[in-house]
Amino acid sequence: MNRDGETGGLDEFGVIERYFAPKSEDSRVIVGVGDDAAVVEIRGATAVATDTLVSGVHFPAGLAGDAVGHRVLAVNLSDLAAMGAEPRWCTLALTLPDADHAWLEAFARGFFALAGEHGVELLGGDTTRGPLSVTLQVLGEVDRDRILTRGGASVGDDIHVTGTLGDAAGGLDLLSRSLSRAGAAHRALVSRFLAPTPRIAAGIALRGLASAAIDVSDGLLADLGHLCRASGQAADVDVDRLPVSPELRELFPARDAESWALTGGDDYELCFTAPPSRRRAIEQALAACETPVRRIGQLAEGRGVHCRRNGRPMAPPVTSGYSHFGESTAASATEPTHGGE
Amino acid sequence: MNRDGETGGLDEFGVIERYFAPKSEDSRVIVGVGDDAAVVEIRGATAVATDTLVSGVHFPAGLAGDAVGHRVLAVNLSDLAAMGAEPRWCTLALTLPDADHAWLEAFARGFFALAGEHGVELLGGDTTRGPLSVTLQVLGEVDRDRILTRGGASVGDDIHVTGTLGDAAGGLDLLSRSLSRAGAAHRALVSRFLAPTPRIAAGIALRGLASAAIDVSDGLLADLGHLCRASGQAADVDVDRLPVSPELRELFPARDAESWALTGGDDYELCFTAPPSRRRAIEQALAACETPVRRIGQLAEGRGVHCRRNGRPMAPPVTSGYSHFGESTAASATEPTHGGE
Repeated sequence: MNRDGETGGLDEFGVIERYFAPKSEDSRVIVGVGDDAAVVEIRGATAVATDTLVSGVHFPAGLAGDAVGHRVLAVNLSDLAAMGAEPRWCTLALTLPDADHAWLEAFARGFFALAGEHGVELLGGDTTRGPLSVTLQVLGEVDRDRILTRGGASVGDDIHVTGTLGDAAGGLDLLSRSLSRAGAAHRALVSRFLAPTPRIAAGIALRGLASAAIDVSDGLLADLGHLCRASGQAADVDVDRLPVSPELRELFPARDAESWALTGGDDYELCFTAPPSRRRAIEQALAACETPVRRIGQLAEGRGVHCRRNGRPMAPPVTSGYSHFGESTAASATEPTHGGE
Repeated sequence: MNRDGETGGLDEFGVIERYFAPKSEDSRVIVGVGDDAAVVEIRGATAVATDTLVSGVHFPAGLAGDAVGHRVLAVNLSDLAAMGAEPRWCTLALTLPDADHAWLEAFARGFFALAGEHGVELLGGDTTRGPLSVTLQVLGEVDRDRILTRGGASVGDDIHVTGTLGDAAGGLDLLSRSLSRAGAAHRALVSRFLAPTPRIAAGIALRGLASAAIDVSDGLLADLGHLCRASGQAADVDVDRLPVSPELRELFPARDAESWALTGGDDYELCFTAPPSRRRAIEQALAACETPVRRIGQLAEGRGVHCRRNGRPMAPPVTSGYSHFGESTAASATEPTHGGE
């Protein structure tokens, strides 16, 4: 079985050795790549997250290896960012239809470039043959008294988001078209989809300041809905205050831009809450790590996420605006887009 | 994207909540299922392993959910066993073509039955839509001064294996046929393939006794080859001493049984080495955890794994004997089956 499961032309050991086994210089790695398991020494509490990317579902079939390598690490690091954890190590499970060396080299390049930025070391993994899919698990360290969770928000807390929203959805829309000319704004949005930036420094800066946090992977309304549910609160979002990039405004009608800012996924910004008394401290902490932040609403009593324009209630957009590959599913049709209960 | 990636009819949250979120009673789980990441407190050093099972590659397409649930946990626990680690937690990445509730219930049943036996708790995971594949990552605890690795064996050390070898290969062969009558021996072998037993207690018992260890997932010759390479030694295996079960002998010709014992994968027994002076201590330690053990050879100077019958060199079998599903790959044709260098 195992031999069947290996990638054509490269056994598992060969793939890991060749592309994914830099020598560890970390004294806390007791056993690194190449044994039955890796062994590390972790300080403090351990944060653990895992995310899978499936070709044709989470990224377009045929996407370049470096983008897949960057993305799979970025989406996992984003989960650690939302906990205020410092990423340390990861394991990689790579399922490949065949051993495409050029693709693997590009994958490793994209993966290790981002890993290097965040000091993340690959501890090992598993390479199997099958339809292209990548699962990463990340391990981080966190001070157990300053963990950011989804569940700590109170009525009256401000709702903040880092960066800008909707760009990845716009970028994905652009990716799905064949455009003869692509300018700077086009490239910027596509890059937001292909190479998202996990907000690790912001998550660490927000420890002790944010009352609750989540990363925006499914779209603001959906993810803020999870935060509200975990905290037992409702949210009022002022759509006039949504942070929308100049590039998204340049290339798309205002209505699409707003819709994507509310419901588009894959931005990997942080959405977090904090008491109004901490506005200044939050601005300073995030300025120190060069992370833009925008206050977009407040928590209220009740349930669900409610949108307001000019202070008056408005209906949220009905569709997420992008279902460009992968079939649509019953879930996408039936799940409430406002993400509440 | 995320919504597209969810399983038809069940969003990710629904799948995790419904099938995989028992309340944690472990005081060392600070944040459990349902946040961006889980947070745990680990004592000692942390052992980490990951393994993926792909439908049609690592198990027959159409295999019952409970067998897949058991297997994916067993193969990962087997990696921890080979390190002498105590399993604690895991994360699950489940890629499903659709939300088949009966299959999911069976998967969860098989998974949690084995998890319960070993005190392993599920910390969270990711559910995505795509071709059926399951990736598990396990976290264990290990005393950093008593880690079993592949690399500590010396010339003259005995080679031992737990249990019996070749049964899973025989079971897989039986699974691939349509037999009208299946007796006790048949059921026993199929069960060895479908529901392997990770040798956790044996791995823990061997800490401080074994000089090196590996689990037999790819076949004895291949895995012993990895151990030899990591230890910088050669191995002499006495094929007359291979532990072959009565069931395998009953249902298959002696030649097939021996070939599978040498090259069949998926048995998940431990192969380990130790100085001859520890024979008695090893017998006692493994008897105390009811694990059969057999001494099958010795380490020698040189490279590679060499087989002997009646004390005289013999050629190892050329093929692994089972490639029943999944296409054969270049790797299976070119990789030396004796697993050495």
